[in-house]
Amino acid sequence: DFIDALEEVKPLFGVAEEELGKRIRGDIIYYSRYINDILEEGRLAINTVRKSKPILSVLVHGPPGSGKTALAAKMAIDSAFPFIKLISAEDMVGFTEMQKVQQIDKTFRDAYKSALGVIVIDNIELLLDWVPIGPRFSNGVLQALIALLDKQPPKDRRLLILATTSQRTVLEQLNFRCEEEIAVPNVNTQEELAHVLRHSGAFSEEDQQRAIREIQDTTGDTEVGVGIKRILTGLEISTQDQDMPGRFARIMSRAIAARTSFA
Amino acid sequence: DFIDALEEVKPLFGVAEEELGKRIRGDIIYYSRYINDILEEGRLAINTVRKSKPILSVLVHGPPGSGKTALAAKMAIDSAFPFIKLISAEDMVGFTEMQKVQQIDKTFRDAYKSALGVIVIDNIELLLDWVPIGPRFSNGVLQALIALLDKQPPKDRRLLILATTSQRTVLEQLNFRCEEEIAVPNVNTQEELAHVLRHSGAFSEEDQQRAIREIQDTTGDTEVGVGIKRILTGLEISTQDQDMPGRFARIMSRAIAARTSFA
Amino acid sequence: DFIDALEEVKPLFGVAEEELGKRIRGDIIYYSRYINDILEEGRLAINTVRKSKPILSVLVHGPPGSGKTALAAKMAIDSAFPFIKLISAEDMVGFTEMQKVQQIDKTFRDAYKSALGVIVIDNIELLLDWVPIGPRFSNGVLQALIALLDKQPPKDRRLLILATTSQRTVLEQLNFRCEEEIAVPNVNTQEELAHVLRHSGAFSEEDQQRAIREIQDTTGDTEVGVGIKRILTGLEISTQDQDMPGRFARIMSRAIAARTSFA
Amino acid sequence: DFIDALEEVKPLFGVAEEELGKRIRGDIIYYSRYINDILEEGRLAINTVRKSKPILSVLVHGPPGSGKTALAAKMAIDSAFPFIKLISAEDMVGFTEMQKVQQIDKTFRDAYKSALGVIVIDNIELLLDWVPIGPRFSNGVLQALIALLDKQPPKDRRLLILATTSQRTVLEQLNFRCEEEIAVPNVNTQEELAHVLRHSGAFSEEDQQRAIREIQDTTGDTEVGVGIKRILTGLEISTQDQDMPGRFARIMSRAIAARTSFA
Amino acid sequence: DFIDALEEVKPLFGVAEEELGKRIRGDIIYYSRYINDILEEGRLAINTVRKSKPILSVLVHGPPGSGKTALAAKMAIDSAFPFIKLISAEDMVGFTEMQKVQQIDKTFRDAYKSALGVIVIDNIELLLDWVPIGPRFSNGVLQALIALLDKQPPKDRRLLILATTSQRTVLEQLNFRCEEEIAVPNVNTQEELAHVLRHSGAFSEEDQQRAIREIQDTTGDTEVGVGIKRILTGLEISTQDQDMPGRFARIMSRAIAARTSFA
Amino acid sequence: DFIDALEEVKPLFGVAEEELGKRIRGDIIYYSRYINDILEEGRLAINTVRKSKPILSVLVHGPPGSGKTALAAKMAIDSAFPFIKLISAEDMVGFTEMQKVQQIDKTFRDAYKSALGVIVIDNIELLLDWVPIGPRFSNGVLQALIALLDKQPPKDRRLLILATTSQRTVLEQLNFRCEEEIAVPNVNTQEELAHVLRHSGAFSEEDQQRAIREIQDTTGDTEVGVGIKRILTGLEISTQDQDMPGRFARIMSRAIAARTSFA
Ligand SMILES: Nc1ncnc2c1ncn2[C@@H]1O[C@H](COP(=O)(O)OP(=O)(O)OP(=O)(O)O)[C@@H](O)[C@H]1O
Ligand SMILES: Nc1ncnc2c1ncn2[C@@H]1O[C@H](COP(=O)(O)OP(=O)(O)OP(=O)(O)O)[C@@H](O)[C@H]1O
Ligand SMILES: Nc1ncnc2c1ncn2[C@@H]1O[C@H](COP(=O)(O)OP(=O)(O)OP(=O)(O)O)[C@@H](O)[C@H]1O
Ligand SMILES: Nc1ncnc2c1ncn2[C@@H]1O[C@H](COP(=O)(O)OP(=O)(O)OP(=O)(O)O)[C@@H](O)[C@H]1O
Ligand SMILES: Nc1ncnc2c1ncn2[C@@H]1O[C@H](COP(=O)(O)OP(=O)(O)OP(=O)(O)O)[C@@H](O)[C@H]1O
Ligand SMILES: Nc1ncnc2c1ncn2[C@@H]1O[C@H](COP(=O)(O)OP(=O)(O)OP(=O)(O)O)[C@@H](O)[C@H]1O
Ligand SMILES: [Mg+2]
Ligand SMILES: [Mg+2]
Ligand SMILES: [Mg+2]
Ligand SMILES: [Mg+2]
Ligand SMILES: [Mg+2]
Ligand SMILES: [Mg+2]
Repeated sequence: DFIDALEEVKPLFGVAEEELGKRIRGDIIYYSRYINDILEEGRLAINTVRKSKPILSVLVHGPPGSGKTALAAKMAIDSAFPFIKLISAEDMVGFTEMQKVQQIDKTFRDAYKSALGVIVIDNIELLLDWVPIGPRFSNGVLQALIALLDKQPPKDRRLLILATTSQRTVLEQLNFRCEEEIAVPNVNTQEELAHVLRHSGAFSEEDQQRAIREIQDTTGDTEVGVGIKRILTGLEISTQDQDMPGRFARIMSRAIAARTSFA
Repeated sequence: DFIDALEEVKPLFGVAEEELGKRIRGDIIYYSRYINDILEEGRLAINTVRKSKPILSVLVHGPPGSGKTALAAKMAIDSAFPFIKLISAEDMVGFTEMQKVQQIDKTFRDAYKSALGVIVIDNIELLLDWVPIGPRFSNGVLQALIALLDKQPPKDRRLLILATTSQRTVLEQLNFRCEEEIAVPNVNTQEELAHVLRHSGAFSEEDQQRAIREIQDTTGDTEVGVGIKRILTGLEISTQDQDMPGRFARIMSRAIAARTSFA
Repeated sequence: DFIDALEEVKPLFGVAEEELGKRIRGDIIYYSRYINDILEEGRLAINTVRKSKPILSVLVHGPPGSGKTALAAKMAIDSAFPFIKLISAEDMVGFTEMQKVQQIDKTFRDAYKSALGVIVIDNIELLLDWVPIGPRFSNGVLQALIALLDKQPPKDRRLLILATTSQRTVLEQLNFRCEEEIAVPNVNTQEELAHVLRHSGAFSEEDQQRAIREIQDTTGDTEVGVGIKRILTGLEISTQDQDMPGRFARIMSRAIAARTSFA
Repeated sequence: DFIDALEEVKPLFGVAEEELGKRIRGDIIYYSRYINDILEEGRLAINTVRKSKPILSVLVHGPPGSGKTALAAKMAIDSAFPFIKLISAEDMVGFTEMQKVQQIDKTFRDAYKSALGVIVIDNIELLLDWVPIGPRFSNGVLQALIALLDKQPPKDRRLLILATTSQRTVLEQLNFRCEEEIAVPNVNTQEELAHVLRHSGAFSEEDQQRAIREIQDTTGDTEVGVGIKRILTGLEISTQDQDMPGRFARIMSRAIAARTSFA
Repeated sequence: DFIDALEEVKPLFGVAEEELGKRIRGDIIYYSRYINDILEEGRLAINTVRKSKPILSVLVHGPPGSGKTALAAKMAIDSAFPFIKLISAEDMVGFTEMQKVQQIDKTFRDAYKSALGVIVIDNIELLLDWVPIGPRFSNGVLQALIALLDKQPPKDRRLLILATTSQRTVLEQLNFRCEEEIAVPNVNTQEELAHVLRHSGAFSEEDQQRAIREIQDTTGDTEVGVGIKRILTGLEISTQDQDMPGRFARIMSRAIAARTSFA
Repeated sequence: DFIDALEEVKPLFGVAEEELGKRIRGDIIYYSRYINDILEEGRLAINTVRKSKPILSVLVHGPPGSGKTALAAKMAIDSAFPFIKLISAEDMVGFTEMQKVQQIDKTFRDAYKSALGVIVIDNIELLLDWVPIGPRFSNGVLQALIALLDKQPPKDRRLLILATTSQRTVLEQLNFRCEEEIAVPNVNTQEELAHVLRHSGAFSEEDQQRAIREIQDTTGDTEVGVGIKRILTGLEISTQDQDMPGRFARIMSRAIAARTSFA
């Protein structure tokens, strides 16, 4: 069934680099041609580092739950570079600002022990402890990231940095900029949503159509605008309900109503 | 009598998990069908974790005193998961921010020693030392919670997180979000209030009607809009007064007049 | 004379509990029936804790100098509970925030060694180091108080908390709330003022009438609106002046002109 | 001459209490009947403490340089109380906030070793490190002062506190209040100014008249509104100039133009 | 090819001073006569220090990526002064404010060991940890820089300071000022852009014209307004794409659309 | 030539007091009668301290680069007092706030070891780490300065304090005030500018006239309004250019265009 399918694909991610794999759950669903474009832009960045520019930073940005982390992880693993590492707030719970800076700095120094490396810096705003109220953030971590992305690698060392964020405008205001940017969209059309449902194998064709119809009836909207992550979570909860399509339609309708704008 | 009844039901809560039981006083009164719906949504979340998604976070939100903590505790105890734990500001009086973060982090690590766990994080805004003036809050605790809720459990570990709050809008502004949400209402109608009074056994049918009539006369309103917790406290104080229904009506009228809006 | 009278009644307060007595000077003057109502509400709170609810918090609020501390102390002493304790900023001069929190926490833990206790937390805003400019306050102390008032006592322990404040609105904005509230008024009418003067024994009936007349002439107002504390201080200074009623009228008129609104 | 006169009167201040004397330079000039009234109000406060109220706080307030410190010192010395002490920012340069609080607290504890004491707390706003920009101030010192002024002395101990400030409105906003207040004015009329000049012995009657006339011509104003302190400094500088009255008129005119409002 | 060309010229920079060379990549392209003017102004500053003024500070300012660091480095190296040193945030990742101040102070003291020195302080705003949100910055580092630039060197010591910034207005608001200023422009005209492309050797004349035409078509603008640094990065990425001119045009068009104003 | 002339006059400053001399470069040019007035006011202050007032503080204020430090140093040296000392931010790079306070306090205590002393406190705003953004400043240093200026010297000790600032209004807002004030103007007229050029000996009469004419043509203004310090720096840079008068005119025109208002 659907859940088992998710479990199954896990090892796919973990092959090259266990570190990254542990944090990713499920496979990439090619629900839109944009997914191919995104991964193609990733390959271009990888080749630029491999063959020309010794350091390149790329910002993978998009709305919450749109799949940024999974896509950046896929790019990193597909590079087959000898050094692949994830920098993530999850691994620094309870660290002081100084400890975080040192940990990040160490990851860059480790990367420079290999000829070719890729570092995924996941969820920059979380790493910065950023909160819109105040606003507050760790300027120490911010400045360290800016300086490390700006710094030329040692001789014969090459490094790609993939940073993810759902707060691109905020990062710009904080003077955090990458050299390139890749945008990740939400699941936006009913066709894309249908593709995801079909891929899950959890719904009959009939149930899937009923669910989409009910969503449209409730929201009065044919546009979806919800991240793949929330859709998959909704699916998992719905499978526990006797009325699976009904529950899924309710969850999706609520998510659509709560859509947040992204810039 | 009423008070003894409350004392009596206490052990009910404490059976599965003494930790939680100690903090809850009294039983769940089914004064409205919403109470059943809420507990049903809790069961769905429990099954999702048990059978499909290894980690799920649910926000139990509602006005002050509406019964969030008691309902979240009930859900947790009814899960019968081998690990059940409450994280509460009450147990961290005098802790530094760093000590709080470490305590919370430890609870999560403890949970991951069991195959199935549920953590109730009670009153998130209190845990964050949140005050509207400033506003001020502990960004350290906030970021730790966000990171811990986002983190995949170790292999073969499953965890449900039930967080309670009466400041849902604030939490949203602080970027604290759960994957699912359950709303807990106030006691809103005179029928619901009557149900609670009847259940208490403290009032004769006549006294109960007189009290409700007096409340309506004083406030000029048939809507109640007061949390179950304040109603039960009002009842306990009133039982000490010679004019029990009169005192209760006065206390309730003041509470109704001071109703705070909730979003 | 008046001053000696004040000295004399002092031991009355100090009987049950020396701690409290040391901080109170003078007796309660029953200048209005509100004083009886206030003390009656105190008795109801005491009985609720004794017989029903194991923990209850009551906010004694009113304008500066209206007699809140004296009345809360009277309620505490009249409870005859085995544990009676005052928490006051005066005893924590030079403490760090952490030391204050630990001192307060210890007082609660001490209270829970007795079956029945009452804690008077005097002048919450002072305890919080609250200043309107900024505003500034100790969030550490605030959060500790909120958590301690919310916490269920250990089995078979019962505790009444009487908190005093002249900044009720501020406390509300700081999310500090008690379960019940008792309002303490100023000395508002000329009759009430006359009662106080008569009780002091310092004025002849004629002098007393002259003073009140002069106050009305100067302020153009028959309303008094000054706290009992300032009236008694004014009396003491006036007794040093050769023209006692004249000086008293001048002091009172200035106080009336400087009346601060209270909400 | 004038300067020698100032030097001469110095010991007068220092007799009773060297501590205070060292900080005061020159004598009290009775240039207006208000000076007598102010000192009379001081005597009333002293007697109130001696005979009736065990603790009393008085705020001596007025524009910068109006003579507040000198007048408070005179009151303190004239009390002939066995304990007289000055608390002043000048003696705490380089102290941390905590050290200041402890120093102040110690002074109060020292005072309570004598049956009768007077503490002059000079220039409260300076003691608080208060700056209008921000605004900034030491909340620690502020709260310590508020608490110490509020605290009942030990049995058989009596204490008068004379606090000086030129920022009365600010102190009120900071919740710092004394039980009584004494206002100190500027030198406001030409007659008062003439009295001061005559008392100095530095000017011939003619020069004095010429100086006052020139001031009026330059400023177009008959009101003076300058503190006694600045007038005396102006006198001292002028005596070094060959054209003494001309220089004095220029200095005074500039001071009058720069008059700051006081509330 | 282009990339190899860049690699080749590297040693040119590193000859005089390895420290500086390591941080610079590629050669100076004389795409406009302004480049000659800028370097001429640099020579004037060098001679002023060599022959007349013992200390001189010059601010090299311009939009992000306009080539400020490379040009300042070229000036420094061309001076052939015995002491040449770069102060850069990159070398102080994880330093406390105090450590940064000490490091900067040490560099100045080292400079004063040589008769003639030049210090490049790169990217002042980064060194100050400056962020527009707040705004926040290290006042400690700022004040140290201001004081060090203001200080006369020891006898017989001469020092030129070249500071770079893309935040001239901010620095002015922070009271950071140099004695002289040199402005560095973007690549602004199509002719200048063509010069850069031709110099790279990566494009055929035809491809170059096609790229510029496509940029104009997309943006509807003949002005370029992009820094040389972003143009060179765009070139490097484009060489990895099969459709090199098309990719370059897309990257440039995006950069032109995102042009930020500079003052 | 001009530069040598500057070098030559240096020892003039350093005679009396090497400390001060080291920080001043060049001589005082009497380009306007205001320079004489300023130095005369300095002599008056010196005599007031010598003969009458034991402590006096004077604020030497004016636009940036107008010559405040040089003039205050001249006054100090001309006093021939046995103790002369400069307090300057330059000598406290890397000091903590507390260390600065202690250093300043020590200088005052040292001064009180001599019967007659003068302390130049240079650039108060720099000493306070003052930045308009925020604004931020060291309240510790500010309060120490205020207290030290207010404090009576020990018996038989006399002290003149000369403080310089280009931020008089800011200091007033910070409650920092001296007893007297001396204003230092810019070089304002073409005649004054000609005087300076002539004194430098660097220009022929013809070149000087051409330079001033070109300045007027470029700016369309006959007012100069630039500090003597920037004029002298402009002169030194211009002497390195082949077209000396042209370069000087360009530098001056830019300075005139960037004139900042001063209050
Ligand atoms: N086409 C896809 N792109 C990205 N993720 C996909 C896709 N198809 C399926 N997924 C799955 O969807 C989930 C996307 O979650 P992910 O954490 O990557 O999103 P995110 O944008 O990083 O979320 P957040 O904003 O919370 O950081 C993953 O579990 C991933 O396996
Ligand atoms: N249907 C019900 N739902 C919830 N609580 C109930 C219900 N019936 C009775 N109760 C009792 O009401 C009280 C609810 O208090 P609880 O502390 O859970 O409210 P809360 O919403 O968490 O309050 P707060 O906003 O202060 O955290 C408990 O004592 C509980 O035993
Ligand atoms: N009826 C009364 N109620 C209260 N206090 C009274 C009464 N009659 C006399 N008093 C005396 O008046 C004084 C009241 O002062 P108290 O400190 O209690 O006021 P308060 O409201 O707590 O002041 P503050 O706002 O400064 O804390 C006490 O000395 C008390 O003995
Ligand atoms: N009538 C008077 N009242 C007060 N001071 C007088 C009087 N006559 C002369 N003096 C002298 O005037 C000076 C007043 O200065 P003082 O420091 O007391 O003023 P202040 O108001 O405390 O100033 P500041 O606002 O700076 O604290 C003293 O030197 C004092 O000797
Ligand atoms: N005429 C030129 N001027 C400056 N740099 C040039 C020029 N021609 C080629 N370059 C190259 O362009 C790049 C300019 O980057 P540089 O880091 O100096 O820019 P910057 O303005 O300092 O950027 P930032 O604002 O990020 O600090 C360097 O690699 C340099 O070798
Ligand atoms: N008449 C004059 N007055 C002052 N300085 C003069 C005069 N004539 C020549 N100079 C020279 O001009 C320079 C003035 O610089 P100085 O540092 O004193 O100015 P400043 O106002 O203190 O500057 P800043 O605002 O930067 O502190 C000194 O080198 C001094 O030797
Ligand atoms: Mg992510
Ligand atoms: Mg709760
Ligand atoms: Mg009180
Ligand atoms: Mg004073
Ligand atoms: Mg640069
Ligand atoms: Mg200067």
